[in-house]
Amino acid sequence: MSATVYLVGAGPGAADLLTLRAARLLGEADIVFHDALVPKAILELAPGAQKIAVGKRCGRHSTAQRFINKRLVDAAHKHRIVVRLKGGDPMLFGRAHEELAYLRSHGIAVEVVPGVTAALAASAQIGISLTRRGRARSVVFATPRAAAGEAPSGWLEAVTRADTAAIYMGVGDAHAIAKGLVAAGKPAATPVALIENASLEPARAVYGILGELPVLAAGIGGGPALILLGEVLGDAVSAARQATARKAQAG
Amino acid sequence: MSATVYLVGAGPGAADLLTLRAARLLGEADIVFHDALVPKAILELAPGAQKIAVGKRCGRHSTAQRFINKRLVDAAHKHRIVVRLKGGDPMLFGRAHEELAYLRSHGIAVEVVPGVTAALAASAQIGISLTRRGRARSVVFATPRAAAGEAPSGWLEAVTRADTAAIYMGVGDAHAIAKGLVAAGKPAATPVALIENASLEPARAVYGILGELPVLAAGIGGGPALILLGEVLGDAVSAARQATARKAQAG
Repeated sequence: MSATVYLVGAGPGAADLLTLRAARLLGEADIVFHDALVPKAILELAPGAQKIAVGKRCGRHSTAQRFINKRLVDAAHKHRIVVRLKGGDPMLFGRAHEELAYLRSHGIAVEVVPGVTAALAASAQIGISLTRRGRARSVVFATPRAAAGEAPSGWLEAVTRADTAAIYMGVGDAHAIAKGLVAAGKPAATPVALIENASLEPARAVYGILGELPVLAAGIGGGPALILLGEVLGDAVSAARQATARKAQAG
Repeated sequence: MSATVYLVGAGPGAADLLTLRAARLLGEADIVFHDALVPKAILELAPGAQKIAVGKRCGRHSTAQRFINKRLVDAAHKHRIVVRLKGGDPMLFGRAHEELAYLRSHGIAVEVVPGVTAALAASAQIGISLTRRGRARSVVFATPRAAAGEAPSGWLEAVTRADTAAIYMGVGDAHAIAKGLVAAGKPAATPVALIENASLEPARAVYGILGELPVLAAGIGGGPALILLGEVLGDAVSAARQATARKAQAG
């Protein structure tokens, strides 16, 4: 007899943006393996569970992944309810595949509990629909982060062709991203927003155009941040420019 | 004094895939305007609220939208907590913009509560990551449904360029979608999955290749369904083919 391992989405950060199912599983869990960045308020929903921080952000943990896989299998043999808690949604940029495949190859039952992903929290935060009718019928979620040895990908083209784009884990590479997107044919005047700490306090959003992305990225803090781009952001960019102009005039 | 209107994501269907915040707001709401397809089990989380079904699916309600907007403003003047409950996430293919803009233009406070979108529920349902490392670094969410009078959009190209795609409200147009994607350069052999009733009972998934999409679509039922495509589905398609072959041999 072994446990079920639940790959659970922790949502974008705010504890009440967890799903009811995720909260129930945390309450019942014997052991919780969580991403290092899952907020404390969420871990407090699992008062009876042993809690183990695993993994880091930004693709720097390829050695650790094998270690996490093994620990999940060990835990499944010892416990009843094992939760693997991942930021956002577990199936988006979360290395779920590696864990699912390893657990299944060891005959362990796995269930996935979806979560609210960062791009949707960012959209809610700034009150701008990612698929405003008449302006956007497609939205791409992409990341510049590649696996070690991964072949060059067409991700810049995918971002260029979609009406709206959300770029995960990209703020540190803002210069290369802006350059790559413009080279791939995205106009430098495309409206962009950077949203930091979406759903958390203090959240922050800055607006501009693709050509200014490196400057905008340099100006935000160290919290989790997402890049949004596309014409759906046009009105917000204009409003931000007008506010800046008024302030300059007043000063 | 007027209420706050909350644009709330109802999630993919299962009542326990609502967020904690959404459940709390439903419990506190004076009045709930909900999409016609939001399941009863979710509406039961608002026992004290007046419940009004509004809107239909598939872009056939452009007249009704003005009517919904007005009713939301009226409700905001009469009540304290008004919930506008939308399937999935409110900012993805949900006409949130029209409602947000109208409410704001009437000076009414609006907050958006993000939700679990159908593509992530589908991914969880079939246990396949949309962004498996080494195979996919971008996933596009798109719809063939256009607004009345909307200019032709590059959505087929956006789908073609992304590593993985989730197509919302597309099952009824499977033939045109398959034809359009192949014409745009997506190989007819691209693995696809159709997932019906993700997160609900009975959920169902069928697998094949893009060239077979019309046949696959004809074979599923009438529940809400989503098309996924991309190489991340390759192993599942092979496994489904092998199972079919074994069955044919046994028969």
